[in-house]
Amino acid sequence: MATFKAGLVGVTGYAGMELARLLAGHEQIELVRATSRSDAGKTLCELYPSLTGTCLSELVITQPDPDDLAQACDIVFMAVPHGTAMDMAAKLLSRNVRVVDLSADFRLRDADIYAQWYGLEHREPQLIEDAVFGLPELYADKIKDAKLIANPGCYPTSAILGLYPALKAGIVETDGIVIDSKSGTTGAGRGANVGSLFCEVSDSFRAYNLGKHRHTPEIEQELSAISGEDLKISFNTHLLPINRGILSTSYTRLKKNLQLEDIFGLYSEVYSTAPWVRVLKRGTLPETRWVRGTMYCDIGLVVDPRTNRLIVVSAIDNLCRGASGQALANANLMLGLELSTGLNLAPLVP
Amino acid sequence: MATFKAGLVGVTGYAGMELARLLAGHEQIELVRATSRSDAGKTLCELYPSLTGTCLSELVITQPDPDDLAQACDIVFMAVPHGTAMDMAAKLLSRNVRVVDLSADFRLRDADIYAQWYGLEHREPQLIEDAVFGLPELYADKIKDAKLIANPGCYPTSAILGLYPALKAGIVETDGIVIDSKSGTTGAGRGANVGSLFCEVSDSFRAYNLGKHRHTPEIEQELSAISGEDLKISFNTHLLPINRGILSTSYTRLKKNLQLEDIFGLYSEVYSTAPWVRVLKRGTLPETRWVRGTMYCDIGLVVDPRTNRLIVVSAIDNLCRGASGQALANANLMLGLELSTGLNLAPLVP
Amino acid sequence: MATFKAGLVGVTGYAGMELARLLAGHEQIELVRATSRSDAGKTLCELYPSLTGTCLSELVITQPDPDDLAQACDIVFMAVPHGTAMDMAAKLLSRNVRVVDLSADFRLRDADIYAQWYGLEHREPQLIEDAVFGLPELYADKIKDAKLIANPGCYPTSAILGLYPALKAGIVETDGIVIDSKSGTTGAGRGANVGSLFCEVSDSFRAYNLGKHRHTPEIEQELSAISGEDLKISFNTHLLPINRGILSTSYTRLKKNLQLEDIFGLYSEVYSTAPWVRVLKRGTLPETRWVRGTMYCDIGLVVDPRTNRLIVVSAIDNLCRGASGQALANANLMLGLELSTGLNLAPLVP
Amino acid sequence: MATFKAGLVGVTGYAGMELARLLAGHEQIELVRATSRSDAGKTLCELYPSLTGTCLSELVITQPDPDDLAQACDIVFMAVPHGTAMDMAAKLLSRNVRVVDLSADFRLRDADIYAQWYGLEHREPQLIEDAVFGLPELYADKIKDAKLIANPGCYPTSAILGLYPALKAGIVETDGIVIDSKSGTTGAGRGANVGSLFCEVSDSFRAYNLGKHRHTPEIEQELSAISGEDLKISFNTHLLPINRGILSTSYTRLKKNLQLEDIFGLYSEVYSTAPWVRVLKRGTLPETRWVRGTMYCDIGLVVDPRTNRLIVVSAIDNLCRGASGQALANANLMLGLELSTGLNLAPLVP
Repeated sequence: MATFKAGLVGVTGYAGMELARLLAGHEQIELVRATSRSDAGKTLCELYPSLTGTCLSELVITQPDPDDLAQACDIVFMAVPHGTAMDMAAKLLSRNVRVVDLSADFRLRDADIYAQWYGLEHREPQLIEDAVFGLPELYADKIKDAKLIANPGCYPTSAILGLYPALKAGIVETDGIVIDSKSGTTGAGRGANVGSLFCEVSDSFRAYNLGKHRHTPEIEQELSAISGEDLKISFNTHLLPINRGILSTSYTRLKKNLQLEDIFGLYSEVYSTAPWVRVLKRGTLPETRWVRGTMYCDIGLVVDPRTNRLIVVSAIDNLCRGASGQALANANLMLGLELSTGLNLAPLVP
Repeated sequence: MATFKAGLVGVTGYAGMELARLLAGHEQIELVRATSRSDAGKTLCELYPSLTGTCLSELVITQPDPDDLAQACDIVFMAVPHGTAMDMAAKLLSRNVRVVDLSADFRLRDADIYAQWYGLEHREPQLIEDAVFGLPELYADKIKDAKLIANPGCYPTSAILGLYPALKAGIVETDGIVIDSKSGTTGAGRGANVGSLFCEVSDSFRAYNLGKHRHTPEIEQELSAISGEDLKISFNTHLLPINRGILSTSYTRLKKNLQLEDIFGLYSEVYSTAPWVRVLKRGTLPETRWVRGTMYCDIGLVVDPRTNRLIVVSAIDNLCRGASGQALANANLMLGLELSTGLNLAPLVP
Repeated sequence: MATFKAGLVGVTGYAGMELARLLAGHEQIELVRATSRSDAGKTLCELYPSLTGTCLSELVITQPDPDDLAQACDIVFMAVPHGTAMDMAAKLLSRNVRVVDLSADFRLRDADIYAQWYGLEHREPQLIEDAVFGLPELYADKIKDAKLIANPGCYPTSAILGLYPALKAGIVETDGIVIDSKSGTTGAGRGANVGSLFCEVSDSFRAYNLGKHRHTPEIEQELSAISGEDLKISFNTHLLPINRGILSTSYTRLKKNLQLEDIFGLYSEVYSTAPWVRVLKRGTLPETRWVRGTMYCDIGLVVDPRTNRLIVVSAIDNLCRGASGQALANANLMLGLELSTGLNLAPLVP
Repeated sequence: MATFKAGLVGVTGYAGMELARLLAGHEQIELVRATSRSDAGKTLCELYPSLTGTCLSELVITQPDPDDLAQACDIVFMAVPHGTAMDMAAKLLSRNVRVVDLSADFRLRDADIYAQWYGLEHREPQLIEDAVFGLPELYADKIKDAKLIANPGCYPTSAILGLYPALKAGIVETDGIVIDSKSGTTGAGRGANVGSLFCEVSDSFRAYNLGKHRHTPEIEQELSAISGEDLKISFNTHLLPINRGILSTSYTRLKKNLQLEDIFGLYSEVYSTAPWVRVLKRGTLPETRWVRGTMYCDIGLVVDPRTNRLIVVSAIDNLCRGASGQALANANLMLGLELSTGLNLAPLVP
């Protein structure tokens, strides 16, 4: 029944691992290439024993080769660091292969802002214009026609989905927004760094990159587009001793007094056709475990009358919704499949 | 497409929660009743917000009522404590409803041994004979014809699958076997006990019930049946600060010198048609995360020539394979479905 | 060498457990009474095997009895819930025993605000005026002369110490402050609640009590006193899957452009004589593990020029600095001992 | 009051970190040198912010230099990997500096066995005879006179203390002993390896090195010396998702029927003068948290009459008792100080 063939460049990181997990259960996209510079030659089950016995078990990892990928694949997922994705993406696009880029290389519409935040010049700026920001709730129609998807960052996915209805409806002030985000440790990647060791993370909690996380311009770009104003946000990140999950607490000021019920109604309306955004009932706040392993974005709403603030709590699985699952959803749309093909997953709780 | 209707007695525990997760993704068995004495009246998504938006979201929890269950259901899963399951099971069976009992009430063939280890007299001993021990790798044929399944305990599932090929082939001594098992904390249940609090379990490890765990006679019963000898084992349990997973390290003595390759071949042969038992390659030992959320039982084999021992390491997800997933596999067989319907799950790693 | 005798009312919670740990190593205060309604009759080492072999090992837990406590003790620590502490405190004070109350009963200067946030009338309002808020960095002189200490809440300790220098110096706006706090699970207490079970907390993260946590008025009271203005803050709490630790991220707006170095100098100056407040060097942000088991409050400072915000990150051990250790520091001062007696602890990392 | 000066070679690993923590609170041994090839030039508080404000905060890390160490130090702790410790130890001893070697280089009396298990020839075999195995409960007298201490391994410390009374009294068979050990992840070291990342260890459990862990000959050497017989044990290790702690479950067969009370009496008698070995009361089994951060070795005893086994559970903190704390205890004895100087620590629970 598989009708499309996919490649995965960069299988050794957590995004690659997650994409392999999801593709092992996808009946219409077959993973035919998985590449890695360091692990080429191994089978997937040697790299990830968890995949033993699945349909991907014996797939042999190869060196990344654009010609080979172009010949073998209808679509290629790029799960490599920013800066290295853009070159391969350009090569694949020139060979008429669809690309879903999980790195940051094509997310920012302005190459100068990219250069400023990522510290390197963009080498394929002409591709930026064609790239579609792959957030299905906002851009499904464009995604269907895209050849190149800039898959959103994990933090931006949680923040944008959380603030979208409020900013679109114009019920909150656009200045002074604070987003306090907390991410599980898969967000730090699978590189062998002392700071990511179990004994450096476990039973602890820390802030990092306050005021200067690279996802800031991505969030500002999208929230500005939504609100029609040039927004500046205070975006700040923390590291959680959990594997998966991002929870963002966003602080806004209401323009006028609104009841929680009204805002709940607004959010429910905006997301009425979005299969994965769950606006939780009054009094229920998200927990990262409730979205574990899935595409859900859970949203909790609080109105604080003492300070006249709307506080929005949004939670996603940073690996699935915030990276590989969203990439697969984009691929589904690009390939003419149902958005949720292979992605109707029940959260693993506990 | 759903062709069978199921009930779940005892939805508030972890086994009930897991069964709900699995049934939310099962296309041929529909959950039509979920009961709980304490939470009747709530919808499932109020009890478990993780199920919001799934097909089970709005199912209203009811009080357990055998007449109602019998009328509404083709099959009922009993996820209540031992001692309370047997009465309801009898009532349901008398109304011609198939029953999968996740408690220990029908696992032991000998009611006296049940009384001795569980501290209460069996009230439905006449049903014991008809009950089938629901371990598909050993008893698939009987399961297909059963009306009452005694769903195996979590520890026994890991221990029996780990030792089955060696004992069946007679390559190890039957006396002196030591099974050192470690379980995740879902195994302690969802009751509100101080000993199960996060701060009593986290960042710690302990042994419990050494030499007297109630799963001991269940393991001995099955291993004795396999080996044809009356076995006594030393079975000992520990509590892990993880959510899911059991890893059992079983120590046996080889009757004669055997190479690891031979034993690997034996195990692979025995489990060649078992979709979920993965005999890991030489040098690879199981990790509980590799089976997380799935039906897999991963087996690692070590021959220690210094002590002439065969050490078998077997890992399962105690909630899925060790309880609710196995219950669902048994239901599949009883209902004439494919064994693995709704259970082809890729492990959630990390 | 022990010269003072202490009682502990409520030994079974985490604050009681922590106080026992600290008193086991305190050479000038001897714990002579530990009370518990539920565990009276046991020795301390039966309740807490970790204390086996310490000087407190064989202390027999008693029922709480004000006459007995008054006769035996120079000072009594109240580690019982709010609402129940005030009565016992009054009885002990009338018997001329010094009291350190770890509950919230005497923290708020205004009995009406107490009634409003805690939902019950204060039964000993005449004692409120004499109670001293036991934060040594702010009130050491008053603490020395106090008979009744209102030991600060855990969250307020982190928030107040983090914002004190900035508000005192008037460099930040007093409106619009957001405090986003995250606490370890000991903060939820040692009660047997499903929501605090290992498998409900582990590998997850959640917000709770947004905009309505009871520590809000306590923080506002103290920050208002510091700044000389009637402050309203947005105070919001989250639950971390760690045992100990609070990290508060406080968002303020600078009144004028200030360099980080200037603010660092201000904070260092203000805390130059405070042995436990560590203003971390530029670029270093606190981690809860760095203060684990100690009295330290680590402060990290960030100036975000894009949004003209001063972000203050403050971390404490919620059990030691945020409760029992601070209670002991207050007792030291009340009894004429050195502030840090028995409290010169090196953080347990990892 | 500090009367002795100490050096620490290898401060960047977890053993070095722990030794720094302990020396920060030791009043008679002053750390005057801390060396590291990779971090020389930093202060200790830059490497470990947790030490900020302690007496060690501003100590500048140096390159390891035997001449400098010999000139500055009365005693040197070697916290470097096996194979590299022996050379430096020899140089320091030749300069009349006492050495406590935390590596395995001098633990095995037989250089051939060292070569066989560690895969390299011993380069200082003449020093082996003078080295004393630094387990105070067994060898306190020799330690007092030693110039070179072979600090025991973490696993051996737990296993030997657990089995010592039983083997010394001859109540258990010397063949067929199985030791199933579980260690926290600090035991894997502070090296940047993918396998030690938070997301590879957290919420999981695995076995490793079954039958071939390098601590095997060390345990066999000591247990053989105790029992007077040439023992072979089956020693097997597992990795726990906790920071600190080892729990060893040792399976032995009783030579004759003995009551638990008798064995409890034997153990209590043997350890009656050992300040840190706690033989727990009947029915109480060790938990690693009860010894966290301390020198305690907790022992739980179980007699299983069904299999006639004595099961011994022993728990230590692998970093403190199993490495750095034990090293410091040895240093205390070598320097003529009280054994427990600086080591009377109450466990950090939770």
